[in-house]
Amino acid sequence: MKIGVFDSGFGGLTVLRALLDRLPAADYVYLGDTARLPYGAKSQATVARYAVSSAGFLVDQGAEYLVIACNTASALALDAIRDAVPVPVLGVIETGANAAKASTQSGDVLVIATAATVESHAYAAACRERELRAYEKACPLLVPLIEEGWIDHRVTEEVLQIYLDELLAESANVGLNPDTLVLGCTHYPLLRAHIERRLDPAIRVIDSADSTAVQVAAALAVPALPNNLTPERSFYATDSVQKFRRLGVRFLGQPMDRVQLIDLGG
Amino acid sequence: MKIGVFDSGFGGLTVLRALLDRLPAADYVYLGDTARLPYGAKSQATVARYAVSSAGFLVDQGAEYLVIACNTASALALDAIRDAVPVPVLGVIETGANAAKASTQSGDVLVIATAATVESHAYAAACRERELRAYEKACPLLVPLIEEGWIDHRVTEEVLQIYLDELLAESANVGLNPDTLVLGCTHYPLLRAHIERRLDPAIRVIDSADSTAVQVAAALAVPALPNNLTPERSFYATDSVQKFRRLGVRFLGQPMDRVQLIDLGG
Repeated sequence: MKIGVFDSGFGGLTVLRALLDRLPAADYVYLGDTARLPYGAKSQATVARYAVSSAGFLVDQGAEYLVIACNTASALALDAIRDAVPVPVLGVIETGANAAKASTQSGDVLVIATAATVESHAYAAACRERELRAYEKACPLLVPLIEEGWIDHRVTEEVLQIYLDELLAESANVGLNPDTLVLGCTHYPLLRAHIERRLDPAIRVIDSADSTAVQVAAALAVPALPNNLTPERSFYATDSVQKFRRLGVRFLGQPMDRVQLIDLGG
Repeated sequence: MKIGVFDSGFGGLTVLRALLDRLPAADYVYLGDTARLPYGAKSQATVARYAVSSAGFLVDQGAEYLVIACNTASALALDAIRDAVPVPVLGVIETGANAAKASTQSGDVLVIATAATVESHAYAAACRERELRAYEKACPLLVPLIEEGWIDHRVTEEVLQIYLDELLAESANVGLNPDTLVLGCTHYPLLRAHIERRLDPAIRVIDSADSTAVQVAAALAVPALPNNLTPERSFYATDSVQKFRRLGVRFLGQPMDRVQLIDLGG
């Protein structure tokens, strides 16, 4: 079983990391469409065009199951990808909403994400389908702070405090009583401990990377490999492979032997 | 005379703003390649490919003179653009370096810019050609802070203080005695007052947007228009024109009547 994992950049490596924990015997092919990132600031038509070409590449590489580990692409392009490829496709928005449904007792859920994910209201729609109410907030500074490496940094703490204070005040203003917060961007798991420390412990944090891995493992039966076989891990990026490898280690939590450059046009 | 102004996004509107002040009778066509921004995180090959197609579009629209109001494209793609189009091309790196040469007495210059501009060392090379020494520092959080609208915000003040402290310490460590700081990103003029307030007044701040306008005005003789004619201003973007107009106003300092969407592929 070969699983294709797609993101606009490195963030989806947090999803792959969770998948490697849960399904270590599967083969994996990862594509980071780094030449065209970030998707988070782009329109639906542009994101759909990029995501469909990226998904097609992964299927061409032999992927039999696709994980769209990019919240923006899951929000804006999941139907377009499903129409375009002949394999099952799972997106991080639906897995995040499933996990929120399993977690919440009040039925009220908070979501933090990039501007484009929030503007799509894809989490609110996915929550509504599951009879939950969601309040979504864009936190556009968190990705650049994480990519600057300022994980344990007072500026990041201050920015988080501002965003979380606003989030709680705004959601209370519209009458919500939330007990669950979904990290709606695959970069955010790197800030999970800081976010949890700043929240009332009654609010449970859902890491959509881990939720996705749990749900992929439940959907797929991957047989254990014979001892003499090593499963395949292939990494592709559409821009600088040096940068991908250097930044990616932080997200994957382990080195990547080799990252191959591919050109998807554009 | 029709002047084409190119940037990957809205930042170049600070250059257009300065041009409108200095050369109000010229016609202008502006292109923001917003579908493919930010260039600052991409490789030289990718930036050159994008910039050449964008420059070609402006020439097709009748531009007789091109201003590359994007530091990353000026750093990585100026020669490629000059090879590809039949009109004069001026880039913000060379105009910034010219202004630094006119300003400095010690011969030592500081430059703050995006990661890709710094990694290209294009400012250091342009300064070296003018017999100046330059110390360049990447400040990757400033663009997202400006785009978040946090211009007068304590987090931005704190980030600026960290970057400027590091810049002064690092440049002193390598033995420089700087008296000039070049804002090597077209977003940064929006933070100019904050930057000047945090610096020793002996360090002069060079705004490359204004420097560029001064040098274009010196190169071109644009006759005054008859009173009954209004010069043309056309705006094109490769992604969401709503977002371009909304964010762009902050950089241009005046409303844009109409922004047209174009598709350059990719």
